[in-house]
Amino acid sequence: MAEPPPTAPDSRRKTLTRRAKQKRFGSNRAEAPGSSPGLLIADPDAVPTVINIVAYSPAEILERQNVSPDDIVKLRDQYPCLWVDVHGLRDVKLIEQLGTLFALHPLALEDVVSSRQRAKVEEYPHNLFMVARMINSSGTLETEQLSIFIGKGYVVTFQATPGDCLDQIRARLRKDHTRIRNSGADYLAYALLDAVVDAYFPALDAISTKFEELEDAVVHRPDNEFVSELHHMKHDLLTFRREIWPHRDMISVLIRQESGLISDQTDLFLRDCYDHVVQLVEMVETYREIASGLLDLYLSSLSNRMNEIMKVLTIIATIFIPLGFIASLYGMNFDRSISPWNMPELGWRYGYPFALGLMTAIGLGLVYYFWRKGWIGRGPRKR
Amino acid sequence: MAEPPPTAPDSRRKTLTRRAKQKRFGSNRAEAPGSSPGLLIADPDAVPTVINIVAYSPAEILERQNVSPDDIVKLRDQYPCLWVDVHGLRDVKLIEQLGTLFALHPLALEDVVSSRQRAKVEEYPHNLFMVARMINSSGTLETEQLSIFIGKGYVVTFQATPGDCLDQIRARLRKDHTRIRNSGADYLAYALLDAVVDAYFPALDAISTKFEELEDAVVHRPDNEFVSELHHMKHDLLTFRREIWPHRDMISVLIRQESGLISDQTDLFLRDCYDHVVQLVEMVETYREIASGLLDLYLSSLSNRMNEIMKVLTIIATIFIPLGFIASLYGMNFDRSISPWNMPELGWRYGYPFALGLMTAIGLGLVYYFWRKGWIGRGPRKR
Amino acid sequence: MAEPPPTAPDSRRKTLTRRAKQKRFGSNRAEAPGSSPGLLIADPDAVPTVINIVAYSPAEILERQNVSPDDIVKLRDQYPCLWVDVHGLRDVKLIEQLGTLFALHPLALEDVVSSRQRAKVEEYPHNLFMVARMINSSGTLETEQLSIFIGKGYVVTFQATPGDCLDQIRARLRKDHTRIRNSGADYLAYALLDAVVDAYFPALDAISTKFEELEDAVVHRPDNEFVSELHHMKHDLLTFRREIWPHRDMISVLIRQESGLISDQTDLFLRDCYDHVVQLVEMVETYREIASGLLDLYLSSLSNRMNEIMKVLTIIATIFIPLGFIASLYGMNFDRSISPWNMPELGWRYGYPFALGLMTAIGLGLVYYFWRKGWIGRGPRKR
Amino acid sequence: MAEPPPTAPDSRRKTLTRRAKQKRFGSNRAEAPGSSPGLLIADPDAVPTVINIVAYSPAEILERQNVSPDDIVKLRDQYPCLWVDVHGLRDVKLIEQLGTLFALHPLALEDVVSSRQRAKVEEYPHNLFMVARMINSSGTLETEQLSIFIGKGYVVTFQATPGDCLDQIRARLRKDHTRIRNSGADYLAYALLDAVVDAYFPALDAISTKFEELEDAVVHRPDNEFVSELHHMKHDLLTFRREIWPHRDMISVLIRQESGLISDQTDLFLRDCYDHVVQLVEMVETYREIASGLLDLYLSSLSNRMNEIMKVLTIIATIFIPLGFIASLYGMNFDRSISPWNMPELGWRYGYPFALGLMTAIGLGLVYYFWRKGWIGRGPRKR
Amino acid sequence: MAEPPPTAPDSRRKTLTRRAKQKRFGSNRAEAPGSSPGLLIADPDAVPTVINIVAYSPAEILERQNVSPDDIVKLRDQYPCLWVDVHGLRDVKLIEQLGTLFALHPLALEDVVSSRQRAKVEEYPHNLFMVARMINSSGTLETEQLSIFIGKGYVVTFQATPGDCLDQIRARLRKDHTRIRNSGADYLAYALLDAVVDAYFPALDAISTKFEELEDAVVHRPDNEFVSELHHMKHDLLTFRREIWPHRDMISVLIRQESGLISDQTDLFLRDCYDHVVQLVEMVETYREIASGLLDLYLSSLSNRMNEIMKVLTIIATIFIPLGFIASLYGMNFDRSISPWNMPELGWRYGYPFALGLMTAIGLGLVYYFWRKGWIGRGPRKR
Repeated sequence: MAEPPPTAPDSRRKTLTRRAKQKRFGSNRAEAPGSSPGLLIADPDAVPTVINIVAYSPAEILERQNVSPDDIVKLRDQYPCLWVDVHGLRDVKLIEQLGTLFALHPLALEDVVSSRQRAKVEEYPHNLFMVARMINSSGTLETEQLSIFIGKGYVVTFQATPGDCLDQIRARLRKDHTRIRNSGADYLAYALLDAVVDAYFPALDAISTKFEELEDAVVHRPDNEFVSELHHMKHDLLTFRREIWPHRDMISVLIRQESGLISDQTDLFLRDCYDHVVQLVEMVETYREIASGLLDLYLSSLSNRMNEIMKVLTIIATIFIPLGFIASLYGMNFDRSISPWNMPELGWRYGYPFALGLMTAIGLGLVYYFWRKGWIGRGPRKR
Repeated sequence: MAEPPPTAPDSRRKTLTRRAKQKRFGSNRAEAPGSSPGLLIADPDAVPTVINIVAYSPAEILERQNVSPDDIVKLRDQYPCLWVDVHGLRDVKLIEQLGTLFALHPLALEDVVSSRQRAKVEEYPHNLFMVARMINSSGTLETEQLSIFIGKGYVVTFQATPGDCLDQIRARLRKDHTRIRNSGADYLAYALLDAVVDAYFPALDAISTKFEELEDAVVHRPDNEFVSELHHMKHDLLTFRREIWPHRDMISVLIRQESGLISDQTDLFLRDCYDHVVQLVEMVETYREIASGLLDLYLSSLSNRMNEIMKVLTIIATIFIPLGFIASLYGMNFDRSISPWNMPELGWRYGYPFALGLMTAIGLGLVYYFWRKGWIGRGPRKR
Repeated sequence: MAEPPPTAPDSRRKTLTRRAKQKRFGSNRAEAPGSSPGLLIADPDAVPTVINIVAYSPAEILERQNVSPDDIVKLRDQYPCLWVDVHGLRDVKLIEQLGTLFALHPLALEDVVSSRQRAKVEEYPHNLFMVARMINSSGTLETEQLSIFIGKGYVVTFQATPGDCLDQIRARLRKDHTRIRNSGADYLAYALLDAVVDAYFPALDAISTKFEELEDAVVHRPDNEFVSELHHMKHDLLTFRREIWPHRDMISVLIRQESGLISDQTDLFLRDCYDHVVQLVEMVETYREIASGLLDLYLSSLSNRMNEIMKVLTIIATIFIPLGFIASLYGMNFDRSISPWNMPELGWRYGYPFALGLMTAIGLGLVYYFWRKGWIGRGPRKR
Repeated sequence: MAEPPPTAPDSRRKTLTRRAKQKRFGSNRAEAPGSSPGLLIADPDAVPTVINIVAYSPAEILERQNVSPDDIVKLRDQYPCLWVDVHGLRDVKLIEQLGTLFALHPLALEDVVSSRQRAKVEEYPHNLFMVARMINSSGTLETEQLSIFIGKGYVVTFQATPGDCLDQIRARLRKDHTRIRNSGADYLAYALLDAVVDAYFPALDAISTKFEELEDAVVHRPDNEFVSELHHMKHDLLTFRREIWPHRDMISVLIRQESGLISDQTDLFLRDCYDHVVQLVEMVETYREIASGLLDLYLSSLSNRMNEIMKVLTIIATIFIPLGFIASLYGMNFDRSISPWNMPELGWRYGYPFALGLMTAIGLGLVYYFWRKGWIGRGPRKR
Repeated sequence: MAEPPPTAPDSRRKTLTRRAKQKRFGSNRAEAPGSSPGLLIADPDAVPTVINIVAYSPAEILERQNVSPDDIVKLRDQYPCLWVDVHGLRDVKLIEQLGTLFALHPLALEDVVSSRQRAKVEEYPHNLFMVARMINSSGTLETEQLSIFIGKGYVVTFQATPGDCLDQIRARLRKDHTRIRNSGADYLAYALLDAVVDAYFPALDAISTKFEELEDAVVHRPDNEFVSELHHMKHDLLTFRREIWPHRDMISVLIRQESGLISDQTDLFLRDCYDHVVQLVEMVETYREIASGLLDLYLSSLSNRMNEIMKVLTIIATIFIPLGFIASLYGMNFDRSISPWNMPELGWRYGYPFALGLMTAIGLGLVYYFWRKGWIGRGPRKR
């Protein structure tokens, strides 16, 4: 569960979400509308292309960094299983050479390079083309496209930047006579997919932690920032769902497809992976419902506070306004010397105590009235 | 309907839901992303594994606690039907031995041990693997995984902790020549499933009781705690639904599957069990709608109270503010000795009664106005 | 449209809904979780079982009250069509005898006795088993289970209490050579089902009348009771929908089933009955949408009233607070004898008229300001 | 777009919707629950039955008003296509004679007479039975049932009252050698259906106009009447949807049915008609979303006005309450002659200017404070 | 991303949306209800019809403007692929001639001319008829109908006005031996469709930018205009969705249809186009959810401001009202000379300091009380 470092987390979060937003919002299409399909146009910011390969049999393994397509041709027939692991999408030429080598369809390669596809699987004559979306390991919700081609004896993967969540797979490949080494290319593809799916769980756990904080916050600090944060959370969940959801269909199609490239044995494992995706989707839906519940909680807590504020105002104002009126009344300057009708109270012996008593009576009366209504203390109804 | 004991129920509830939340939220995955599937890793908090067996024919029954896999091999052929009832998931070795003995698939065993699966059914070459979620008998909504394998002549079940809702089944097994003793392993599996499903009803009944209390509370005590409680109820219902819902698909798949392991006779019973799940799902949906209705009721009751408070404030303030103004007016100190234009009222014979009368008239006028608007008493419109 | 009698309707309603609620909420399961299925356990409050029969051919009819199973055996072969009409579910033995007589499946009989099933149809080897829910004729929304078995030449029905909505059918049976007498058991079953469905219409009409009252009330009496009543209406509609909805599937399954027990002729009539159920469902959905519209209407009417109240308060307070300030100002006691700077206005010849004029000017200015804002009168914008 | 005449539109609208509501709400079932199906019971208010016929071939046409069933028998064989156009449903006998003549099924005739069916299509041995709902041409949303039977060489239609939206069809029939005259009964039925569907468009256009008015009103006149009107609009849209929606299924079933009564050629036209219904449904859904958007707009505008009102109150009260306090302070009557501690300010040379200055300072300070908060003017944040 | 010019954007927007609304709302049907189908009636405002053609083979291309139907007949057999590109729908005769030439069905031609169809595809004996909706390039959300007929060796397109988003396609056609020139009519149709779909992305990007502005605005300028703008945005998204959504079904039907007019190769490209539409739909749905989230954010921010306003009012009023009361109290004129009971405080040596002290104590007490409640400063709970 990789959290951003504690220094200035808020400002950093803003920068990240701003960048993430630009990826998420907008369509980010490099190509102009109406341009020819199957044409590979590299993103100007793309990283240079590096091809690594892992060739293995149950007993042997060969890892090579930064190979050329010619090297691959040689290695291809020596090992039963070959993983061509491509990082960086700048060298369109190189990618096209790989395409010719493994009979990758131009439309699929266009999807590889454009890099903004939803998770999907497509069946081409010589191979299966899958797109999965890897979550960024840095704790943000940005995802990166992992394009996977499965053919007879080879898996070709493409990703835009070097870092990923597949190192565990690379490590597992290095151990001899394990299941991954004994199985074919289809199992390797499954293992990659499974690693991609599993990497979502820590990110969801981080969201879960955030939600617990929000649940506490709504009780102790129901300010406007809360809603803004909740809004961002809902936004994140929306993105999350949009990224994960297509994996469900994708794996389901993969299980049912009949190209012969995926063995029944691997289907069983894919079913397991499918269960994980369903679990992810379910968790996201649950969080979405919790989020809308939190908003209700917040709004009603806001209404409650407003009620409380108004009650205090009403009680104070309602008690003192009549008292103030009486005080003002006896502050009038009617000329008592002219007639006995003018403010005789002022000349009473106990005039002042009488006025104070009147005020006390009215004040207590109102207090009693508010107590009966339940605005002061617990009210009589609770007894 | 097992309620928690009455002592300090609130604090206890909090502790429980906190723990429950940690289970519910978060993904609780012991394995790291990208690790090899089919690898059994025991939860460090797991309870030691104990294997009990019940072997029976219509006329005979043998119950043995804490047996070893070797014991099972011997018993297996002596009775037509064998229930291997495993509690505790710590001894991964033992579980793997059982797996070899009954040809349980490694992926299924991984699901058994990971213990956080949704209800599902999977068909493997030699047996059917079902996951059900048993509700905790302690009145909380925590569920525990019950993993069931059905094969020819045996049922193997796994659960993480000893206590469960299956004692009734164990008791029924002890009676000779009953239907459960006359039927095969498939009927036993159905009986277990049915007991799991039926155990949800008391929990839902407890929720129902809670809802009736809330319905009363919204009328007599519409405070903020109400919303918080409602929020927890909705959360619980969400969990509930998430737990129950997959059972529906699971049983439906079970009825339609064609492995030959489940007889047509048992299908009839499973249909009955399916009806119970549908009933549960329907009840949960009804409660969810009631919950959102309660929130509306609460919010509008809050608005009403606010209206009432504002009305009191407005009436008092609006009546006394003009009166106070008049009193202040005649409290001004304009020098009557300088000119007859300065506050002649103060020198009137009936100046004071005139001022009092003016105030009374204005006060009564405003009272009449508010009565006409229906703010005081029932208003004229109701007549 | 049977309304409860006018005396003390409210208290009665409460009692009824309380009882109804206990039926609706909670699961009301007599059996303990995990108990053996197919076991008949009578509800301790059940009414004693009475078996009536109607045996008929197009030309002849025989009605007998309170017969024994043995009587039925004799009558069975004499008439082409037999209706065994059972009231009261206490004598489980008797019901089991009937079960043996007509080959009724134990699981179906369990559903008959448990009496809390949703509407459904199940196909058994020798007969069809249908559950319908009859609305109570007393104007409340409680429903009673009508269990119907259709076999070759017979219909067996079970209901918990004697009163029902089927008397019309009994009357129609008594007329010779009518369609119901000319047709077989399947038509009789259809006629029963149709009577059950049609009995919902008066109950919905009562709800419709209630809604028109509420629509008037929201305009003339928008108090808190309104929301509470609306809440109950929504609750009732929820129950209603839950009861009716399964009938739709049930009849649809009935039309498509292929047991040979239902003739094509009767299928046409069932289609008609299906249309009625769809109409009921549609009406309920419409009322539910109207209900949520009414809540919006109420809440916005509440907000409007609040606005009105606040406007009155604001106008009065805002006008009189500055005036009161001026009055207080000239009520200060600064010593004019010490310096000419101290409150010279008090010594002006027209000081008092000046003060009054100032107040009038400010007052009128504020009135004009509020009129411009549209708070007093219709405002300038409307001109 | 037939609007009601401008005189007293409001009162008239109320009367109309009241009548319409009585049709819409309530089930309007003439028959008692449980009565025999297929029995024709005329509505006591029904209009006397009149049978008109139009018999035509591509080159010839014969129109006859008020014919008897015997006349029809004669005409039937002389023309390839016959339209029996029945208005008024009082003479049940006459309708039954027609039923016998054209082999119309009793259940279908019952639907014809009951006159409250949803749009649907049913296949009977000798003909197809369709129910469509014609919108009233008077601008209200009341609909009337048009029952259409299609058989070999004839179309029989029933409607409750004479006026309808089919005159255009009657006019088109009078032109020789047009498509409608060249085609068979199925095309005539399509043409009738199409006319019924198209007649909904002007009614929806009227609603659209009304919505634009409401959109303006919410800005300039956000009073309670607005919500009430919106509520009625939503109610109307609900009715609308309920009436139109079933036509979609109906035409879809009609296109796929295989009775041989509808030619492939006509299917193409029905597909076109289907598109129109889909367009209608879509427009209704759009208006429903707009309606709920308008309510949000209204409520937030209400909240804004409340905020504005409160702001004015707060500003005035908050500024003048402290000033008033100071004025009251110096209006106290402490006896300055007794000690120099008692209100020395009153004896200062510049006491009064000092007090005025203090008040001005406080007043300006508060104004500045409110300006900074953005409550007065545009606030500093906007600069 | 064509934005309107910066001069007076608001007024312009209003004019545009007003015009757009008239297109969107209302049904805009030229024909009267009940008129004959397949009859071409030109819109009186329609642009004169111009026919351009592009005839091409992989190596050759011929472009001709403003040709007559006779010219087309000649060209048709000389080139393997012909694009008849028709602008303007006024000359119904000309369109009918084209219809005869290419066997276009009259119903399809009616849809072409009526110009208000949803996206759809229909299979006719000799060709496929597709309707797509092109977004207006001027930045508004108005769409224009593009009708496409695909037959063996030809594509015929119709659009109401000359400007469109297809110039890119025309440019691509001019290059020899490109894929578009090597492929047949089906690929050309795909290319047109793809250009239409891709043109939606810039429009959605503009909406996305607008949403980011709104998200900022809700924090810094939460006025009523915000809601009104949000309402318009939601309206636009509604229109958007209604326009885009049917393209999804359309392309899906196109992929699965089996007329033989679309090659498997082109199906692969259509699948790609389908992905784009799904992406568009998903983006629209995301924006719709964001829009409703923004409304929540706005409303709660409004509530918060109200709370803040009320808090200021309450604090000031609640502090000064009691103080003012005390001041008024000692401003009463009870006659101290008559008895020692009358206002003895006025005669105290430290009467005035005592009164000031009392006021200070009460004021501070209330400030402390409000601080404890968290209304002033951050409150004690946060410490």
